[in-house]
Amino acid sequence: MKKKIRAIQYGIGPIGASIVKLLREKEAITLVGAIDTDPSKVGKDLGEVVGAADAPWGIRVSGDARGVLEQSADVVMHTTSSSLPKVMDQLLACLDVGSCVVSTCEELSYPYRTYPELAEKLDKAAKDAGVALVGTGVNPGFVMDKLVVTLAAVSQRIEHAKALRIVDASKRRLPLQKKIGAGMTVEEFRAKVKEGVIKHVGLPESVAMVADSLGLPVDEIIETIEPKVATEHIKTEFLTIEAGQAAGVHQIARGLSAGKELIYMELQMYVGAKDPADTIELKGHPNISLVIPGGSQGDIATASVAVNSIPAILEAPSGLRTSRDLAIGFFSPRPLK
Amino acid sequence: MKKKIRAIQYGIGPIGASIVKLLREKEAITLVGAIDTDPSKVGKDLGEVVGAADAPWGIRVSGDARGVLEQSADVVMHTTSSSLPKVMDQLLACLDVGSCVVSTCEELSYPYRTYPELAEKLDKAAKDAGVALVGTGVNPGFVMDKLVVTLAAVSQRIEHAKALRIVDASKRRLPLQKKIGAGMTVEEFRAKVKEGVIKHVGLPESVAMVADSLGLPVDEIIETIEPKVATEHIKTEFLTIEAGQAAGVHQIARGLSAGKELIYMELQMYVGAKDPADTIELKGHPNISLVIPGGSQGDIATASVAVNSIPAILEAPSGLRTSRDLAIGFFSPRPLK
Repeated sequence: MKKKIRAIQYGIGPIGASIVKLLREKEAITLVGAIDTDPSKVGKDLGEVVGAADAPWGIRVSGDARGVLEQSADVVMHTTSSSLPKVMDQLLACLDVGSCVVSTCEELSYPYRTYPELAEKLDKAAKDAGVALVGTGVNPGFVMDKLVVTLAAVSQRIEHAKALRIVDASKRRLPLQKKIGAGMTVEEFRAKVKEGVIKHVGLPESVAMVADSLGLPVDEIIETIEPKVATEHIKTEFLTIEAGQAAGVHQIARGLSAGKELIYMELQMYVGAKDPADTIELKGHPNISLVIPGGSQGDIATASVAVNSIPAILEAPSGLRTSRDLAIGFFSPRPLK
Repeated sequence: MKKKIRAIQYGIGPIGASIVKLLREKEAITLVGAIDTDPSKVGKDLGEVVGAADAPWGIRVSGDARGVLEQSADVVMHTTSSSLPKVMDQLLACLDVGSCVVSTCEELSYPYRTYPELAEKLDKAAKDAGVALVGTGVNPGFVMDKLVVTLAAVSQRIEHAKALRIVDASKRRLPLQKKIGAGMTVEEFRAKVKEGVIKHVGLPESVAMVADSLGLPVDEIIETIEPKVATEHIKTEFLTIEAGQAAGVHQIARGLSAGKELIYMELQMYVGAKDPADTIELKGHPNISLVIPGGSQGDIATASVAVNSIPAILEAPSGLRTSRDLAIGFFSPRPLK
């Protein structure tokens, strides 16, 4: 019998909770520890914290990251923050004990343009430890970058790449609806954008990955964040939005070469979105497009992509990897062959 | 400056011709030789044989495979036959001189069920030589297998996988229209199916790759080939089809587990096909589907996938690889970084 893969969960927010529940379905995985600093979680059983039907699991959530990491798991599932500078010490601590890392930190998905020094530091630390790490998820990490690059395999020449993701936030959790500014006045929304509070993190990372992978010589990436304004009264399970208030974000990132647009990525994530879908369009020879009708559900898909990346990151050459380097597929619940 | 990738073209039919023209657009590639046994091609300039605008290229087509292969190219692009037993000696000769191989041999795309001994022999020969080989193309190799496995990354559980490819053969080359039986009577068509002459090769390979990659315990793969019968008079650039005659193939492969269908793959390739498209549907948690409207054009896409696989196969661990193992993307025409 093959040895099981020992995994640690680092961060037990909504995505982390979704990941550990999925990990429990994989026969090849043993969860050996869980880390979170939230006093309301520390000391409690992980299964109870995530509301699992089969709780308790016999794994206590610990606030002592070093202590848990010292078990030197095969892989750490890391879900604490979107900001790469904020999580550098956490990632280095994982690598330091010889664990591979799959992180949903959006800025880690393709950090070479925004944080080249941090990328180099992580790459070196991973190589020194003989392990690999990757930042991934559904977006960034899949629908607006990995899938674009994969679809490009059928192309001979590419002149322009476009990705459009329309997400209906109506059924999503309250923190997400708040995070996208749903129910704010347009003025409040714009103020929160200025503060950096309202923002989907990851579009410039996706633009950069696509640019480098498709050989599109992008020398500038620009991004805009506007409110999607409700045209009628909307009521969700959690909140009410009046016509004229913000219903969510309308975010656009463009990759330019001497001012000419080569890449266009648009994210509409708002309550009441019509026709949610993920769409990719490559212009070139031949033109080719792809549609995921309904779109891939954000939280479920991010947990899926992270967990499905485990076999690939364990087999990857050591160093900092990105989703484009990994032949990501599906992590079967049955034992690995 | 980085050393160029030295490539040899083995087989100069329609796909091989499309590949060499594409290779010429890549700054990172130098074509160093071409092999074909057709007396009408041997001794001629490769550029002239493939009808390139910038011919002659200064590369002569040779019938002496060993002699050409002895240059020990970095990669051999192999496009001679769909049958793995028929091309074994050719592939082994390539590996023997230490060249990686990208082949469009359909039966090489996932040979583990039909030809396990041949797969093992190739894997060993490649490992002994420290090189890698892969069988790929658009189908098998991409739309009905690699793309299915890639899409599965957003899934948590998968119960059933379906792929449907509808190709309009109206604008395709005459040999392809003939190969799919267009213009035959239904009786002729069925006789040719019995002889093994009419058949798209690769559906069982795609079913097997998807089954193993998604952890679907398929114990039997069955395949049917029926004519798609024309309901009206159709005229293409090359031939005429009367109502009641075959317009092409309608081929279905199913992966079963104790008689229960887990995988369904359907190929409709016929003259006058309505609404050509590639469609994937995964049933599970969550259900997810994907559409390539218009579908990916067969010959162009197969040449693209083969050439775009070059960077990945050169970096792959030695041995027999399949498209699911490779993080295939796009081979930029600009120099490799």
